Amino acid sequence: MQLIKYPAKDTWGELLQRPVMNLDEVENRVKPIMQAVKEQGDAAVKDFTQQFDQVKVDDLRVSNYEIQKAIEAVPEELKAAISNARNNIEKFHVVQKELVKKVETMPGVMCWRKSVPIDKVGLYIPGGTAPLFSSVLMLGIPAKLAGCQEIALCTPPDKNGKVNPAILFTADLVGIKNIYKCGGAQAIAAFTFGTESIPAVDKIFGPGNQYVTAAKQMATKYGVGIDMPAGPSEVAVLADSSANPKFVAADLLSQAEHGVDSQVIMVTNDALLAEATEKEVERQVGELPRRDIAKQALKNSKIILVDATDTAVELINQYAAEHLIIAMKNAEEIGEKITNAGSVFLGHYTPESAGDYASGTNHTLPTNGYARVYSGVSLDSYFKKITFQQISTEGLKQIGITIERMAAAEQLEAHKKAVSIRLEEIRKR
Amino acid sequence: MQLIKYPAKDTWGELLQRPVMNLDEVENRVKPIMQAVKEQGDAAVKDFTQQFDQVKVDDLRVSNYEIQKAIEAVPEELKAAISNARNNIEKFHVVQKELVKKVETMPGVMCWRKSVPIDKVGLYIPGGTAPLFSSVLMLGIPAKLAGCQEIALCTPPDKNGKVNPAILFTADLVGIKNIYKCGGAQAIAAFTFGTESIPAVDKIFGPGNQYVTAAKQMATKYGVGIDMPAGPSEVAVLADSSANPKFVAADLLSQAEHGVDSQVIMVTNDALLAEATEKEVERQVGELPRRDIAKQALKNSKIILVDATDTAVELINQYAAEHLIIAMKNAEEIGEKITNAGSVFLGHYTPESAGDYASGTNHTLPTNGYARVYSGVSLDSYFKKITFQQISTEGLKQIGITIERMAAAEQLEAHKKAVSIRLEEIRKR
Repeated sequence: MQLIKYPAKDTWGELLQRPVMNLDEVENRVKPIMQAVKEQGDAAVKDFTQQFDQVKVDDLRVSNYEIQKAIEAVPEELKAAISNARNNIEKFHVVQKELVKKVETMPGVMCWRKSVPIDKVGLYIPGGTAPLFSSVLMLGIPAKLAGCQEIALCTPPDKNGKVNPAILFTADLVGIKNIYKCGGAQAIAAFTFGTESIPAVDKIFGPGNQYVTAAKQMATKYGVGIDMPAGPSEVAVLADSSANPKFVAADLLSQAEHGVDSQVIMVTNDALLAEATEKEVERQVGELPRRDIAKQALKNSKIILVDATDTAVELINQYAAEHLIIAMKNAEEIGEKITNAGSVFLGHYTPESAGDYASGTNHTLPTNGYARVYSGVSLDSYFKKITFQQISTEGLKQIGITIERMAAAEQLEAHKKAVSIRLEEIRKR
Repeated sequence: MQLIKYPAKDTWGELLQRPVMNLDEVENRVKPIMQAVKEQGDAAVKDFTQQFDQVKVDDLRVSNYEIQKAIEAVPEELKAAISNARNNIEKFHVVQKELVKKVETMPGVMCWRKSVPIDKVGLYIPGGTAPLFSSVLMLGIPAKLAGCQEIALCTPPDKNGKVNPAILFTADLVGIKNIYKCGGAQAIAAFTFGTESIPAVDKIFGPGNQYVTAAKQMATKYGVGIDMPAGPSEVAVLADSSANPKFVAADLLSQAEHGVDSQVIMVTNDALLAEATEKEVERQVGELPRRDIAKQALKNSKIILVDATDTAVELINQYAAEHLIIAMKNAEEIGEKITNAGSVFLGHYTPESAGDYASGTNHTLPTNGYARVYSGVSLDSYFKKITFQQISTEGLKQIGITIERMAAAEQLEAHKKAVSIRLEEIRKR
């Protein structure tokens, strides 16, 4: 990690820059995949699966038998852990449901909005080296709580044509029945256009590599919604002299092990802590099975020493981290000052991995500075909020003249007339 | 309008298709505008203003003097109407603020989320034939209620270099101070990159023509958020024998006058009403100042006769209208069955224009079938929802093993270690 001391404010922009993602080349590779799946459906999906996952899949749909076998294969201890996490995630998300509040804005003018579930959602779960069954919880639980009618899940098969048992167990636990052996851009294409086996959906959720990300962006051009634009995962740690360098180092590494393009940043006003943490990172990284990945990620990563807490907070708000750990004595007070972040972890005993797996908050969060604008996945992500209004004849008499004057001033006479024609009818009575 | 009787279900998809928008050509014209504004700032904005709005603007920022003059120029009656609308819109939006709910998912594990305003927002208000000051209310009021720190407004000048007085009055009423004479794709480019006069923003809101729409889509590639993808405006009316054909015709026309690409659709199970409405539309359209526009729009528009109410509801949910008027006896009951719509207007005395201007609901709504996935603009659109968590040592002892097991199963040892290293420290005490 680079240690950067007291950077001038006009250098922050450059200092906090993310690795540039150039999706143009990726897009050029994804376009023909989208097109082929659109035109040839299952046949194209199977071809790409053979090409990219090196396995021939006869039936894209995971059978009940396979699900039952998988449930048997998952160790009881892991099942218990996943069930615990499920309970917490459910508890946190269920309170996010908005109740209908009717507002009478003028006598006889009632307005309200109602959360209505998105009908069909597609969840994408990456396979590869790490089977991310935790994402099945994070994406599947709110979909179920919202009441989405159709929930489909795509995940790539391994070289034997199997899906990881923990993924199937978790999907079953959450109540997802429609699971397909299909990964990468071809899975996103299948969700976008539908194939003989895989249903077209209204909105696609889930993490993935740059091909998946590019395909999701393309899907939006066909009217399909996506959870959010995605970039490499990242953590920032804001620490003061009360922080334990061992803990901070462990937190930085828990993000660095994700991928070679992950970014980790530490900001502190304590020079001794900065140096101690740097050493701890060096020491701990050697002990990790994924040390080669983590070491690569650390090359993009920085420890930034600043003069004061306020400076640190300002810098961290400018960065807009996906995950922000506040390892400070007065963590809660500092937390109040955070304006840009995906998820915030307060105090010395709140590691990011708690939120990644089991505390209850969602781990699908805005990366790449999008936390300035976007929120992480929540129950809201699975709803449209439809507004309703109902006006009585008395109400229209009250509000009519206001509408007529505004419509006339905007030179939209037909808008005015839709009111006038009703007021005339009311007067006639 | 075409009258279509009892269409078979397998023809609905085609029947309900929106006019295809091909943004590729538009994109090619917008790209160099974005690039020029990025590189040359104000100078480029002024050049494009001369080119597209046929006026030379010296100072892009609207002066206080101009604002005061505009306030004086707006008739008192219109001021009163706009103020009424403001009050209603405020009443409806203020209750959308979500309170913080802390959830203790396990003993010692506290999770919550907090709404934090997006720092900088840019509002785009089209000029041209109709000065859409109502959009200043719809976009500005929730921005103010949310507490966005910087609110900038761009709107094109007329041929004399002036902004419509009603737009300036409304902006002042809402509390927007930073107003710029700048329209079209160059305004969106200015919001995206910032210029000497116009600030870069985090999120862009507002309607516009296809150049504005294409520019907003491009802005998202630079990490700027947008309110939603936009298409031509549309209304659907669901009517039964209790409906008044005059009212229904007036509602259809209030949408048709928006633009030649607007779509209006009526669905009913009453053959007599269908015919009577068709005639009324013919009669009323002749009386409109914007009849040429409305007549064009009616060419894309349809009256669809179906056999039963359930069929009508199913068809209307498939269409996912931006605006849906339910002109039926049991409007509220039918409203409960609506799963896809931007905003719903219930009963015979609730014209769409009420919601367009003054009832309180927002008029910035998903078009082009996006109502299947997207919600209209609301207070939420101006917030990020940041999740927080705080775990006590007792809490970590409770939840630790769950996280460790899940991290190990996902082969992410550093995630596990961030917990283990803390549990060791707790045990040592």
